[in-house]
Amino acid sequence: MAHIDLDTFGITEGINEMIVTTYQGWSPNAAPMGIIRKNDELLVRLFKGSTTYSNVMAERMLVANLVYDPVLFVRTTFGDINDSEFDVFTHDERHFSVLKDAVCWAVFECTDIKETSEALVAKLKPLHARMNQQVFKSVNRGFNLLIESCVHATRYELTKDEKYMRLIKAYSCTVNKCGGKPEKQAMKLLLDHLGENK
Amino acid sequence: MAHIDLDTFGITEGINEMIVTTYQGWSPNAAPMGIIRKNDELLVRLFKGSTTYSNVMAERMLVANLVYDPVLFVRTTFGDINDSEFDVFTHDERHFSVLKDAVCWAVFECTDIKETSEALVAKLKPLHARMNQQVFKSVNRGFNLLIESCVHATRYELTKDEKYMRLIKAYSCTVNKCGGKPEKQAMKLLLDHLGENK
Repeated sequence: MAHIDLDTFGITEGINEMIVTTYQGWSPNAAPMGIIRKNDELLVRLFKGSTTYSNVMAERMLVANLVYDPVLFVRTTFGDINDSEFDVFTHDERHFSVLKDAVCWAVFECTDIKETSEALVAKLKPLHARMNQQVFKSVNRGFNLLIESCVHATRYELTKDEKYMRLIKAYSCTVNKCGGKPEKQAMKLLLDHLGENK
Repeated sequence: MAHIDLDTFGITEGINEMIVTTYQGWSPNAAPMGIIRKNDELLVRLFKGSTTYSNVMAERMLVANLVYDPVLFVRTTFGDINDSEFDVFTHDERHFSVLKDAVCWAVFECTDIKETSEALVAKLKPLHARMNQQVFKSVNRGFNLLIESCVHATRYELTKDEKYMRLIKAYSCTVNKCGGKPEKQAMKLLLDHLGENK
């Protein structure tokens, strides 16, 4: 296992909302996931039926990308992004894909995979990591509530429970008040996708 | 005016939630504030009656500290912190105070001050800035909703409107689920302060 200081790569205790990229030798895939850190152990929980799930079952590897672009969070929540938005690297003769726009990323081996009827839980062992940009991320309520809105949007799509839509609409006011252009654009994209911007 | 790239210091378009430190030659003061960036112009709005307001009226200077410590957000929302938590520096023969725990900070001259019956609005011109730590900040829903809770807590204290308390209690579940130890500790402190942890 590589000696990678998780804190340095922005992976701190609790649930880290990152964009996970996986690759099965053809098209790379990106999806927002929670990377769970408890003390120095990392875990991920992946639901059956997702591309991330089948790629991890096949390759036992994933990349956690730290992303500050709210538009990319929305786009990967709802669909596929272009192959041109990924870089493919090789480490120890294994290929993996990362997001070009990640501020940093870390590659993990997925071990101790446990399956339930609806999901898998895997431990993550760091293999390799890279910092792309050294930028400070401002604390922005618009960005923060855009992330909340992505989480609620997936729940809304699954359940059609209107309470999620009410939260998203309330958050969209703060996103438009406190966010910058990227946050506003991301919120518009999210509401368009949910059919609420007519 | 110093040529300081605001993006580099984590001050991006929209409202940046930072901890503003001011100093009037005796005890330094810290309080969370929104630093508003529209294109390349920075503004701050300070309510009358606050220590930040009177310090800015006297000294026409403030420091915006980028802070990732959720406990410090709660402590500065509700009260004074210790003098030992500040550093005092001098730039062009003027003294200013910064937070030792800031990941970075920028000193601003407050110009074009406009007063209304309840507040002042000032433009901010950068004088000097420093990066203390180069760390990646993970996207953490616990941290994000702790910041929301601080905002709602000040509104709750002003208005006693129970809707803010309902939001804080709802957010506290996510903070305890997704946050790390600092977020959980900060939420406990916030609820203790509001008299809700009995």
